[in-house]
Amino acid sequence: MAKVLINGYGSIGKRVADAVSKQKDMEVIGVTKTKPDFEAKMAVDKGYKLYAAIPERKSLFEEKGVDIEGTIFDVIEDADIVVDCAPGGIGKENLENIYKKYNVKAILQGGEKAQYVEDNFNALWSYDRCYGKDYIRTVSCNTTGLCRTLYAINSATDIVKARVVLIRRGADPNDAKRGPINAIVPNPPTIPSHHGPDVCSVVPELEGKIITSAVIVPTTLMHMHSLMVETTGTTKDDIIDAIEKTPRIFTVSAEDGLNSTATIIEFARDLGRVRYDLNEIAIWKESINVVDNEVFLMQAVHQESDVIPENVDCIRAMLQMEDDNMKSIEMTNKAMGLMK
Amino acid sequence: MAKVLINGYGSIGKRVADAVSKQKDMEVIGVTKTKPDFEAKMAVDKGYKLYAAIPERKSLFEEKGVDIEGTIFDVIEDADIVVDCAPGGIGKENLENIYKKYNVKAILQGGEKAQYVEDNFNALWSYDRCYGKDYIRTVSCNTTGLCRTLYAINSATDIVKARVVLIRRGADPNDAKRGPINAIVPNPPTIPSHHGPDVCSVVPELEGKIITSAVIVPTTLMHMHSLMVETTGTTKDDIIDAIEKTPRIFTVSAEDGLNSTATIIEFARDLGRVRYDLNEIAIWKESINVVDNEVFLMQAVHQESDVIPENVDCIRAMLQMEDDNMKSIEMTNKAMGLMK
Amino acid sequence: MAKVLINGYGSIGKRVADAVSKQKDMEVIGVTKTKPDFEAKMAVDKGYKLYAAIPERKSLFEEKGVDIEGTIFDVIEDADIVVDCAPGGIGKENLENIYKKYNVKAILQGGEKAQYVEDNFNALWSYDRCYGKDYIRTVSCNTTGLCRTLYAINSATDIVKARVVLIRRGADPNDAKRGPINAIVPNPPTIPSHHGPDVCSVVPELEGKIITSAVIVPTTLMHMHSLMVETTGTTKDDIIDAIEKTPRIFTVSAEDGLNSTATIIEFARDLGRVRYDLNEIAIWKESINVVDNEVFLMQAVHQESDVIPENVDCIRAMLQMEDDNMKSIEMTNKAMGLMK
Amino acid sequence: MAKVLINGYGSIGKRVADAVSKQKDMEVIGVTKTKPDFEAKMAVDKGYKLYAAIPERKSLFEEKGVDIEGTIFDVIEDADIVVDCAPGGIGKENLENIYKKYNVKAILQGGEKAQYVEDNFNALWSYDRCYGKDYIRTVSCNTTGLCRTLYAINSATDIVKARVVLIRRGADPNDAKRGPINAIVPNPPTIPSHHGPDVCSVVPELEGKIITSAVIVPTTLMHMHSLMVETTGTTKDDIIDAIEKTPRIFTVSAEDGLNSTATIIEFARDLGRVRYDLNEIAIWKESINVVDNEVFLMQAVHQESDVIPENVDCIRAMLQMEDDNMKSIEMTNKAMGLMK
Ligand SMILES: NC(=O)c1ccc[n+]([C@@H]2O[C@H](COP(=O)([O-])OP(=O)(O)OC[C@H]3O[C@@H](n4cnc5c(N)ncnc54)[C@H](O)[C@@H]3O)[C@@H](O)[C@H]2O)c1
Ligand SMILES: NC(=O)c1ccc[n+]([C@@H]2O[C@H](COP(=O)([O-])OP(=O)(O)OC[C@H]3O[C@@H](n4cnc5c(N)ncnc54)[C@H](O)[C@@H]3O)[C@@H](O)[C@H]2O)c1
Ligand SMILES: NC(=O)c1ccc[n+]([C@@H]2O[C@H](COP(=O)([O-])OP(=O)(O)OC[C@H]3O[C@@H](n4cnc5c(N)ncnc54)[C@H](O)[C@@H]3O)[C@@H](O)[C@H]2O)c1
Ligand SMILES: NC(=O)c1ccc[n+]([C@@H]2O[C@H](COP(=O)([O-])OP(=O)(O)OC[C@H]3O[C@@H](n4cnc5c(N)ncnc54)[C@H](O)[C@@H]3O)[C@@H](O)[C@H]2O)c1
Repeated sequence: MAKVLINGYGSIGKRVADAVSKQKDMEVIGVTKTKPDFEAKMAVDKGYKLYAAIPERKSLFEEKGVDIEGTIFDVIEDADIVVDCAPGGIGKENLENIYKKYNVKAILQGGEKAQYVEDNFNALWSYDRCYGKDYIRTVSCNTTGLCRTLYAINSATDIVKARVVLIRRGADPNDAKRGPINAIVPNPPTIPSHHGPDVCSVVPELEGKIITSAVIVPTTLMHMHSLMVETTGTTKDDIIDAIEKTPRIFTVSAEDGLNSTATIIEFARDLGRVRYDLNEIAIWKESINVVDNEVFLMQAVHQESDVIPENVDCIRAMLQMEDDNMKSIEMTNKAMGLMK
Repeated sequence: MAKVLINGYGSIGKRVADAVSKQKDMEVIGVTKTKPDFEAKMAVDKGYKLYAAIPERKSLFEEKGVDIEGTIFDVIEDADIVVDCAPGGIGKENLENIYKKYNVKAILQGGEKAQYVEDNFNALWSYDRCYGKDYIRTVSCNTTGLCRTLYAINSATDIVKARVVLIRRGADPNDAKRGPINAIVPNPPTIPSHHGPDVCSVVPELEGKIITSAVIVPTTLMHMHSLMVETTGTTKDDIIDAIEKTPRIFTVSAEDGLNSTATIIEFARDLGRVRYDLNEIAIWKESINVVDNEVFLMQAVHQESDVIPENVDCIRAMLQMEDDNMKSIEMTNKAMGLMK
Repeated sequence: MAKVLINGYGSIGKRVADAVSKQKDMEVIGVTKTKPDFEAKMAVDKGYKLYAAIPERKSLFEEKGVDIEGTIFDVIEDADIVVDCAPGGIGKENLENIYKKYNVKAILQGGEKAQYVEDNFNALWSYDRCYGKDYIRTVSCNTTGLCRTLYAINSATDIVKARVVLIRRGADPNDAKRGPINAIVPNPPTIPSHHGPDVCSVVPELEGKIITSAVIVPTTLMHMHSLMVETTGTTKDDIIDAIEKTPRIFTVSAEDGLNSTATIIEFARDLGRVRYDLNEIAIWKESINVVDNEVFLMQAVHQESDVIPENVDCIRAMLQMEDDNMKSIEMTNKAMGLMK
Repeated sequence: MAKVLINGYGSIGKRVADAVSKQKDMEVIGVTKTKPDFEAKMAVDKGYKLYAAIPERKSLFEEKGVDIEGTIFDVIEDADIVVDCAPGGIGKENLENIYKKYNVKAILQGGEKAQYVEDNFNALWSYDRCYGKDYIRTVSCNTTGLCRTLYAINSATDIVKARVVLIRRGADPNDAKRGPINAIVPNPPTIPSHHGPDVCSVVPELEGKIITSAVIVPTTLMHMHSLMVETTGTTKDDIIDAIEKTPRIFTVSAEDGLNSTATIIEFARDLGRVRYDLNEIAIWKESINVVDNEVFLMQAVHQESDVIPENVDCIRAMLQMEDDNMKSIEMTNKAMGLMK
């Protein structure tokens, strides 16, 4: 049983904890929080051992009567690996100040920069490269979504040039502070955006072949991507077929009523998914088209959850628990109840 | 086993179906849909027997390859009771054209008018009145929320005058057609709004003692109510105590991070509630105050789900399955996994 | 003085009326409304002669005490041209049932289909083609925005292939009924969307060279376009230069604080523009880039107002009042107070 | 001519500058900015003399080529009065560190606390009290809206108890950073909110007679207030009459299409108001009702602009330019083009 510590029990951290708990070959030995809010209380109620991420804050938990086992430093040496799920930017500090010092393997999240780590993880593309490594980043929600779909396309044909426009959700659903309320924000206002290079951190062979632009819009549910991918030659049926064969992506049909990110989330709710997590990328069937060897499609990405199974696979790769990425993917998916 | 037919498997219908299925003393004998969309397919996948709500539409299902058992008229005579969950206004037509004709007991929802039925249901207030009756309406999400809280207040003191401002969600989360996107809409623009009289349809003793106004705002998650209730005398502690003793309402604390409807829904997601349903009314602890014998508080109402357990209790009352409302409430809550 | 009748005094109609009124060579002889709401009252207050668009509704105005001159049929024969600004789809009916019958020239708006008219208008591209014609459509807000920017690019180089993703506002700011409140809607869910062919209705030489996809997002202020235009060869400076020389488009800088559609509208408000109309297309300076001869840029389109000066120019072309499109553009711009 | 310096040329500052400029008896001798963004450039374009609010930042303006006259310290001694329009909290610091030191009269805005100043201003209620004073605060947008309407009610009858629920806009329209995107936020989560005491800072006779609660919702256009005001006795007609007689408040009718904050803003746009400012409070005619001597009504408050004429009147009072508040109001309104 691999012993996993979750540092930062927020949107990503709590999901990674639950996903790890469901695996047969790994267990959560602790989760950390910086403050004793409702999430901290629920972590304890769920049976997770709770530690203060910042030692000085330990007393805050005690004052509030939240059961705390100690600080991260009381548990870190027991961990085989830490999954860092602290807010963007802090992961890097934790890497330098804690993980390297304590000589513990660590996964950082997509809010960190690609160059801080040995390599960048996506289960389809870079499992082997990350095998046995010490410090790896699982790429962001957007990058994960792109990597999966480009993998499918790449499995059917050769990518000549990929152009992507990302329409990003403004804030996560639980965040009532961030906007915009009524605006479209080019973010970044420069083209290309950083999303292309981020894909290349996972798929170096796309260097010079992908260009992205991005805007932020007033919604909390999902990101949306519009992909235009020039290839050496393919057909619509080949692409649909490739999507069907690729794990963690699937098609939805607007005609069936799945005609917006809102109904896709309704679908996830109706599936009974906990927290309505849709770890898979949803591609609109109607949008898939091939014109002059160029693949077009639109996809919806559930930012809160698509990276979760990747973190699980990343643990397996880094701890050399399974050397076949497809087997790891299958184990993870099955334990988490994914479609494929 | 009471045989229950759900007519209209939409936002309310699918939840009533699932809640009924979980009860030991009742079963779903069928659900109806008007079109073969993803909800219809999922109903079949879940094991519900699907019928066309409108006979002429049956072929639509067949064309789409959705397994359908027949039309509502093939199943209605087997039902002990129909829970009508058709869109507002259609329930009344169904009552006149179908349920009365087939002589089957029926529950209408809050989108129908109070006067079309024999009485109006809330498990705390009018269970006994509805006992054994044939045509009953479970009141709307807003009215249900108000009835519960006013029950708590009433259990601690006497209500002299209740003033409520309702801040209503613009559309359900799966509805991408309805707005407003960026406006506050007085709806109705007249004061008093219809919500006060609707409460009185359940609690006639409040006639002349409750006045409401309402606006619609650009959010999908929950309604919010600001209550100001003059009483003959009470204290803050008494009110908190009464809330604790009343089923299906509970307090949340902004200090714990539950500081908006968004974090309350996050809480429901973290609880693992299917579809993140929060069937209970959440009252902000910080908002509860008593000044000059007047009770003040703010509450959040999950419009999609608060009426669901009421429908279950209403079935028990109408079919005379349990004569003690508190016992029915307890059975329903336990089967559905509610807090209290 | 050209006599102009505005049929449908709504979002577009009231702006066309004001813009026509400001021109030296044309006048508004009447505006029509279907109901006596605040817009109708304000039309009268502004001095426009008001007519009922639908004869049977005339009495509604009288009942409300709104001064009405008669019905459209009392004024249509005095008109040299009608600018039809009725809701999408109704313009076509008006064309067949009224304008053709009364033998009056007419402009339809972008909500109508391209094939119903003799040609499609954009002042930069098709002024000459529409010169002296009887039934012309000024293209939609999105198409107008694209036509202008593609004109600039085309003036600097040759377009090989244009790819555009349109991120559309969900509803106009005065419309509190339409959503989405919290969703991204692929609209249409198919690729290509109709926007490419619509551009080709104005610029036939782009046939086969433009492909578009579109989504709708929860905002009311502006549309946003992300353009990727392969060319035979150009530079960033050439493109900036071409934009500077093209009427009715200009650059804004995110660095100056104009970093979202919200601040661009703030800019228009600060400029003192009536109704904050930004008839010009705003292109983010930071977004302009040329990589491998492909032009990238993002632009914001004020849907309520960009087509207004086009309607004015279209009148001049159809009535053969000025044969040089650039002179008409200059006259219109000057009278309306546009930047360029 | 009173010499007025505007410290902080943001949402409020730029409007105060424009309003002061339109008055015959006062002039703007300068405006300050902290950074050389588009607002700074437009201030210069409009002919305002621009000064750096923070001396160290002066070079930023020079680097950007924005014409700057110097720093606030180069102009402050020429001012008869400073209108501080810095962000909430900074006004107090400016008062202590600058205005008192330079012995210049100053007006703070509603983002500051009531107790930092000699008195709190509303032109209807406290003009005389502020006459000739040195440091005064014009109260916030919400408080200003309440003061005006309560003045009207008070002029018709005696107020026994006022209950108000405020539904506040989440952010100003130009602010794309602040949310919420999809939530209702009780803010504060405690009842009473601070709005009641803030009204009492202007109208001390309401002490103990007003209680408020407030929520924030995802909209940028206007605040909305639901008022319930117990009186010693009045009628609906008396209240409508009092509203008609009170400056800077007026009624709108949902029936006319003015049925949301969105259409009220459309009305202001159609009126040709610069920046669509609706300095007057709009009360829904349909909402006005009197039941058991209690006045009910709903009103919409344009947060960006209702306090602007108050600032002008406050200048006149503090500089003893006019001793009759109603005359000052009339002068201000006329110069600004208000309805009444
Ligand atoms: N939310 C998303 O949509 C999303 C998607 C993919 C990747 N990510 C990435 O995942 C990471 C976490 O994001 P999130 O959305 O879960 O953030 P979050 O704010 O929801 O959670 C962060 C958690 O880290 C804790 N924390 C704060 N300081 C800490 C410290 N010094 N050490 C340890 N923990 C600390 C916080 O208390 C909080 O519980 C970021 O890198 C983010 O970019 C987020
Ligand atoms: N959604 C809420 O927030 C909410 C809360 C409380 C009460 N209600 C009330 O519940 C009722 C249902 O609302 P909903 O939100 O579930 O609506 P919905 O639109 O989500 O679902 C209605 C369902 O009824 C079906 N239907 C349409 N015509 C029908 C017919 N003639 N016969 C049978 N079924 C038909 C539709 O196909 C759909 O599946 C309404 O009275 C509504 O006012 C809704
Ligand atoms: N609003 C935009 O963003 C926008 C932008 C570009 C083009 N357009 C196009 O302009 C046209 C008008 O759109 P709008 O946004 O001004 O709509 P609108 O709804 O604001 O106004 C339409 C007006 O037409 C009137 N009307 C209704 N039926 C009529 C009839 N039978 N005859 C005459 N008038 C009638 C209505 O009373 C209303 O005043 C549409 O074709 C639309 O697609 C709209
Ligand atoms: N915006 C509203 O809706 C509204 C309504 C009524 C009252 N108010 C109050 O008016 C005041 C100003 O608010 P706003 O909305 O105009 O804010 P804003 O952020 O739009 O503008 C503030 C301006 O002050 C400048 N500034 C920053 N630091 C400064 C300093 N140290 N000295 C001088 N200027 C400085 C900023 O550059 C900016 O131009 C606040 O007290 C606010 O609470 C705002």
